[in-house]
Amino acid sequence: MKNFVVHNPTRIYFGKDCIKAVTKEIPKNANVLMVYGGGSIKRNGVYDQVKQALEGYRLTEFGGVEPNPSFETLMQGVEQARAEGVDYLLAVGGGSVADGVKFMAAAMLYQGDPVEILTSFGKSIKQALPFGCVLTLPGTGSEMNSGSVITRSSIKAKLPFSNSLVFPQFSVLDPTTTLSLPPAQVANGVVDTYVHIMEQYLTYPVDGKVQDRFAEGLLLTLIEEGPRALAEPDNYDVRANLMWCATLGLNGLIGAGVPQDWATHMVGHELTALYGLDHAKTLAIVLPGMLRVRVRDKREKLLQYGERVWGINSGDESQRIDAAIEKTRRFFESMQVPTRLKAYRLAADCIPVVLEQLRAHGMVALGEHSDVTPELVQRVLEDCL
Amino acid sequence: MKNFVVHNPTRIYFGKDCIKAVTKEIPKNANVLMVYGGGSIKRNGVYDQVKQALEGYRLTEFGGVEPNPSFETLMQGVEQARAEGVDYLLAVGGGSVADGVKFMAAAMLYQGDPVEILTSFGKSIKQALPFGCVLTLPGTGSEMNSGSVITRSSIKAKLPFSNSLVFPQFSVLDPTTTLSLPPAQVANGVVDTYVHIMEQYLTYPVDGKVQDRFAEGLLLTLIEEGPRALAEPDNYDVRANLMWCATLGLNGLIGAGVPQDWATHMVGHELTALYGLDHAKTLAIVLPGMLRVRVRDKREKLLQYGERVWGINSGDESQRIDAAIEKTRRFFESMQVPTRLKAYRLAADCIPVVLEQLRAHGMVALGEHSDVTPELVQRVLEDCL
Repeated sequence: MKNFVVHNPTRIYFGKDCIKAVTKEIPKNANVLMVYGGGSIKRNGVYDQVKQALEGYRLTEFGGVEPNPSFETLMQGVEQARAEGVDYLLAVGGGSVADGVKFMAAAMLYQGDPVEILTSFGKSIKQALPFGCVLTLPGTGSEMNSGSVITRSSIKAKLPFSNSLVFPQFSVLDPTTTLSLPPAQVANGVVDTYVHIMEQYLTYPVDGKVQDRFAEGLLLTLIEEGPRALAEPDNYDVRANLMWCATLGLNGLIGAGVPQDWATHMVGHELTALYGLDHAKTLAIVLPGMLRVRVRDKREKLLQYGERVWGINSGDESQRIDAAIEKTRRFFESMQVPTRLKAYRLAADCIPVVLEQLRAHGMVALGEHSDVTPELVQRVLEDCL
Repeated sequence: MKNFVVHNPTRIYFGKDCIKAVTKEIPKNANVLMVYGGGSIKRNGVYDQVKQALEGYRLTEFGGVEPNPSFETLMQGVEQARAEGVDYLLAVGGGSVADGVKFMAAAMLYQGDPVEILTSFGKSIKQALPFGCVLTLPGTGSEMNSGSVITRSSIKAKLPFSNSLVFPQFSVLDPTTTLSLPPAQVANGVVDTYVHIMEQYLTYPVDGKVQDRFAEGLLLTLIEEGPRALAEPDNYDVRANLMWCATLGLNGLIGAGVPQDWATHMVGHELTALYGLDHAKTLAIVLPGMLRVRVRDKREKLLQYGERVWGINSGDESQRIDAAIEKTRRFFESMQVPTRLKAYRLAADCIPVVLEQLRAHGMVALGEHSDVTPELVQRVLEDCL
């Protein structure tokens, strides 16, 4: 096992009717900005629940944060918040809103041009406003970590940043808020969570037995509950299990002390920024291809994954590995998420464009061994057509 | 799944040579009291490493905290610390030292008689000194939780308390510090961790799929690594896995959103307080008996446990359950920890004494259904003779 440091100060309120907990966390004298997305929270009752909980607070709103939240939009929110003297932010929505609020929290107090938050990958953040989150769409894990991904529309780039100052102070996870999600968003959340776990698990063995068992436990739960969420959309317990999986899939726990990959995510980001594919949809395409091309690097963990997660015990090594990857791809398809570029009418001519963007963003040595070059990504994407 | 709140602010430094991290955490101007036990840290080099790391700090020492730390001893430490103007405590040792420092941290600032900390189960704590922990004996999980058990020698009682103010600010977990432990202490740590997990897992199903998978993952790791720690005492990775298991077994994660039992622990505490048996040794006796007597309550989880943890798939339900419990008992025996009272020359005449103490301490409605009465404990102990 590798050495590690783990610290996660976010307080989680999980379960039915727990939105009212926001009042335990936000100081009564705070000047709160509630930040949300396209307005689905107004249709599913979450907006009203938050407003009711915060009665008596100084409270203003900033809506319209888009999926893959953009620097440009968020800076409008920052200007509004500054003008109103806001000192506490509350994200109400999915991972995009949470990511956006992390950026706003840092940008509000930033000395200099806030674009540096992105160009420094978050290292330049020296202070941030406190904020909380009411999560309505599980998947990104942003509700209990210190990472965020912001899109600069002007240069078609999705740029990740992280800093321990942008952990949410608290997050409210009420699975009932996810019952009204469209099936495509449920599926995206499951795939996103699955790939987060794989990026931290499917590398090479370092004898991190607990981390492996935890990752496998989350994957098994997703495989069991993901299709049930589509088939039984009113099942609270299924949604609760998926929501808790998503949080634990990317809160620093399963990745502590083990190598991490993240090449699939970086390639996926470029596909989203260039062609507008949902984040999870890019991952469902790239991950199986990445595994197929990198079989040699990942041989031991692929065999372990095949056996423990998919029950694959027969056949020679190569057959077992192929079966494990194919099971993964079919799982994404079973969630109604395509696993080929052609499903989005993308053909080979997109590949050089993606490679150029990877190079432009310095993403030239990805993966757990820093050896996933643009040339290797080319082979991956050719395998994903 | 049940509603839950999770919050764990303790920062963990895990791995080789990380004791020096104490200087990142303890303010330079702090007046530090280093608290330790019987002096094994002076033989294994940990004492020197801590002293070296804290060169330049105002630093005094309080040694001699016993296993099952006593109120009486700890109050001596509190007096010494007050006299010296101490404002930061550092526990260096195993769970007993960590538990003791939690009590001292609360007692130092307590308005009133500190015995109330115990009689109120910690509810009366309003403030506590900051403290950290350098762990040298994994098992109790005290290094990353807000619970503690203190013995009042005068009345032969082990009294648990907890309060969110007594989370360690940080804990240093260097598995190399555990390489010199005597085999009996290694075994105790494994059994203690195993039973912590069982108390949170082996109750009744609430569809907490992730919690179940995580608990099972920890149990599987203990079963794999426990005997190896005895057979390969110099294996760092084995010790690292056991150390991380112990922390995750009782840091609030696997017990969030699921029922919890703890009857075995409460009965075990009385055995320790009355007859001086090591904590883990009492658990190895009581748990198998508790499971045998409470088969009906725990039927579904016993079947799941047998299948997922021990691979028991054949036989009728009753045979599978018996096999699962017997495998558990034999696992403890394989760790050289006896599972019968007679191993300690305790016979049936101890039973009424234990029951009387349980009643005296208000422990008359234990377990996940609050239906483990002294009468039921009597049957359990008769089954453990």
